[in-house]
Amino acid sequence: MTDASHDPADAAAPSRAGRPSRRSVIGWGGAGLVLGAGAAGGTAVTLMGGSEPAGEAGAAVPFHGEHQAGIATAVPDRLHFAAFDVTTRDRAALVQLLKDWTAAAARMTQGHAVGDGAFGGLPEAPPDDTGEALGLKPSRLTLTVGFGPSLFAAGRFGLERRRPGALVELPKFPGDNLDAARSGGDLCIQACADDPQVAVHAIRNLARIGFGKVAVRWSQLGFGKTSSTTPDAQTPRNLFGFKDGTSNISGTDRPTLERHVWVPPADGPDWMTKGSYLVARRIRMHIETWDRTSLQEQEDVIGRDKGEGAPAAKAREHDAPFLKAMLPTAHVRLSHPDSNAGARMLRRGYSFTDGTDGLGRLDAGLFFLAYQRDVRDAFIPVQRNLARNDALNEYIQHVGSAVFAVPPGVLDQDDWWGRGLFSS
Amino acid sequence: MTDASHDPADAAAPSRAGRPSRRSVIGWGGAGLVLGAGAAGGTAVTLMGGSEPAGEAGAAVPFHGEHQAGIATAVPDRLHFAAFDVTTRDRAALVQLLKDWTAAAARMTQGHAVGDGAFGGLPEAPPDDTGEALGLKPSRLTLTVGFGPSLFAAGRFGLERRRPGALVELPKFPGDNLDAARSGGDLCIQACADDPQVAVHAIRNLARIGFGKVAVRWSQLGFGKTSSTTPDAQTPRNLFGFKDGTSNISGTDRPTLERHVWVPPADGPDWMTKGSYLVARRIRMHIETWDRTSLQEQEDVIGRDKGEGAPAAKAREHDAPFLKAMLPTAHVRLSHPDSNAGARMLRRGYSFTDGTDGLGRLDAGLFFLAYQRDVRDAFIPVQRNLARNDALNEYIQHVGSAVFAVPPGVLDQDDWWGRGLFSS
Ligand code: HEM
Ligand code: HEM
Repeated sequence: MTDASHDPADAAAPSRAGRPSRRSVIGWGGAGLVLGAGAAGGTAVTLMGGSEPAGEAGAAVPFHGEHQAGIATAVPDRLHFAAFDVTTRDRAALVQLLKDWTAAAARMTQGHAVGDGAFGGLPEAPPDDTGEALGLKPSRLTLTVGFGPSLFAAGRFGLERRRPGALVELPKFPGDNLDAARSGGDLCIQACADDPQVAVHAIRNLARIGFGKVAVRWSQLGFGKTSSTTPDAQTPRNLFGFKDGTSNISGTDRPTLERHVWVPPADGPDWMTKGSYLVARRIRMHIETWDRTSLQEQEDVIGRDKGEGAPAAKAREHDAPFLKAMLPTAHVRLSHPDSNAGARMLRRGYSFTDGTDGLGRLDAGLFFLAYQRDVRDAFIPVQRNLARNDALNEYIQHVGSAVFAVPPGVLDQDDWWGRGLFSS
Repeated sequence: MTDASHDPADAAAPSRAGRPSRRSVIGWGGAGLVLGAGAAGGTAVTLMGGSEPAGEAGAAVPFHGEHQAGIATAVPDRLHFAAFDVTTRDRAALVQLLKDWTAAAARMTQGHAVGDGAFGGLPEAPPDDTGEALGLKPSRLTLTVGFGPSLFAAGRFGLERRRPGALVELPKFPGDNLDAARSGGDLCIQACADDPQVAVHAIRNLARIGFGKVAVRWSQLGFGKTSSTTPDAQTPRNLFGFKDGTSNISGTDRPTLERHVWVPPADGPDWMTKGSYLVARRIRMHIETWDRTSLQEQEDVIGRDKGEGAPAAKAREHDAPFLKAMLPTAHVRLSHPDSNAGARMLRRGYSFTDGTDGLGRLDAGLFFLAYQRDVRDAFIPVQRNLARNDALNEYIQHVGSAVFAVPPGVLDQDDWWGRGLFSS
């Protein structure tokens, strides 16, 4: 084994500083073999097919912008989500990490390797990039960062006065059965992509860059989106077999996004303007019980029919729900804005299956992700209502929970994740 | 909750018997609402886009044939693998389950729902199909069944004399750190597909059909293939960033398949002719350690270069390996047929990431799957060699293990998985 004290942040530096990569100077090292730069240098420059347009499912989503990508942008089918504990006590080291992460995220989302060459670096050093995404397309990868309440704790990084009032710890809801090992986190990264290998590669490389400063607290793979932000597309189905996301906020509906998702200047603090708040809930779905429930009862529980997804007593999926035609305990009736003083959130969850639960059942469910302007007006009241009354509760259980302040977008190459929070 | 004693096998019966589905007679039930058959009946007939050709990645792989699909057929990118314990003690119930599974597998692999309608069945009964794959393409889904050694134990199903000599329990190898909860199993189903939701749907519905007769012992999701059976295609990369599967057996190389993968009549028993033996190993990869290792060392450990995948001292990926140019402990040198009396196997593994290990590291690795004519001449000697000498052992650990006899293909609609084993 080699020197473990090597700092991957150094390896990424040449690309950020615009110097030529060591890889492109040295050529590709085999076991003692050097190929000519002409033979392999071309492949070395870009990873994952570069940024050439490759159809919707292969394309790159812009990284820079006023909002972070991965919220209102179209939802790709696969997710890798990771929550991190910050293990360093050094504020400067944390700031440097966020800068390094930003640079790596800007490259990876555009289909490039971390660093500057495919396996950039000297043969005697660890490669800049772990390499498993070489040859894959950008796959609409988005990387979205969030800051958890614990990051702002007194005595850590001097951030206690900068904590947003809206970044509250979620209350305990009736029925919660939370596993601390799958809850919380100082930081989170949401990686969405069409290709799971691209999402896993991204998280893994960020974890690698953070070695010695952060440790992965928990992570969650999602194999199928359960909500979409593009209402024209086919609505995906969740593991209960129902269309999910029908009444979601559309990613192009600016007025609704401004009202319910993006933090306006008036809400404060300044560094959160154009950001959002993310709630993540790992919700176990007891699919075996559900699968033995009649179609009629399933539809009563949800408040929509299973085939078309139409609200009770309506014919088509996108007909406006008539809440009084639903049972008082129906999920859609209880979660609808009309039952919650107009509360809305942008849902972006994924189905998961994580092996078995030791009782002969699949450990499957919904990794619920929702973005909103203020959790105190959105997730918390809606979930209070659901936790008390929802007929779905017989078939689900919340087993993990986290909340994060998601800062605004990175504007350009000089900007970085958290600049507003850590500056001034 | 509704009557849990409902037997899903009954629900599937109408389709097998060719009777019209109850769903197509009744129409679609909403919460008290009946849509006309014309409006929605068309969608009800086929699930997942039916069997219309939809390009390579959406197409259906034939289910019937002399060999089971999912071995020599092209490897799609996603996997859901499940091992089951048989909980019934009734041989007839097990036989009926295998028949029901076969019928459901024949439908699902061709892009249809289990049963006959999308949510076929009366509103008062659980739907025939769980529904989450409605609207998805067949996605080259293959379902492959295997029988574990424990199924043949004395006093269970009267199969002890039918156990193949080749179906041995694997020996304990040096370095093994096997978790019993992720090892073994009476039965297995390997589901491979382009879309993970399709693979998960298939396993989940087979588990549902088996309710009360089998319980899921363990299951594994794989997010990216690490081997391919189509040598002309781009070779996938594993989580160590190396091309994996370069020297694999091609699915169209009949002589090699006959010699190393398919069981010939001479090997016996009769019911295994044209079948194969499957070894599954869950191999944890310590990616954090690997990622801090120099490129040179990584390449020395494998015996190939990282970018091109060329064998040591050779220029191109598909050049024949020159074993003496590699370290004596190089993985490729040790696993090559020339170091193992000509032993070969068809590798079909997948990368996995299952959250974290509680120590701040991703629980990631290779779910190794290999098919062979006889494990005593293939996996066992090769792994003995690797377990003792492989430089890779510093970076990996085998944590789960299973072996299965994989019977030949299902010939036609009257045939079923295991007919040869259970008949006569
Ligand atoms: C496993 C748990 C859950 C399942 C299976 C589920 C399923 C569904 C389904 C099928 C719909 C109807 C289609 C649609 O409009 O999206 C729906 C709607 C909705 N759900 Fe959930 N949901 C779950 C958890 C939650 C949670 C925890 C919340 C928030 C606290 C929530 C909030 C909503 C909202 C706001 C709507 C839209 C209601 C409307 O405006 O019509 N859901 N859900
Ligand atoms: C995490 C564990 C493993 C990793 C990362 C790994 C990786 C690789 C790589 C990169 C190659 C070279 C490319 C190729 O020809 O496929 C290879 C070849 C090979 N591996 Fe593995 N492997 C692992 C475990 C195993 C195991 C457990 C076996 C069987 C006991 C095995 C058998 C082989 C064979 C037979 C070859 C082809 C050798 C040749 O004919 O050149 N590998 N492996």
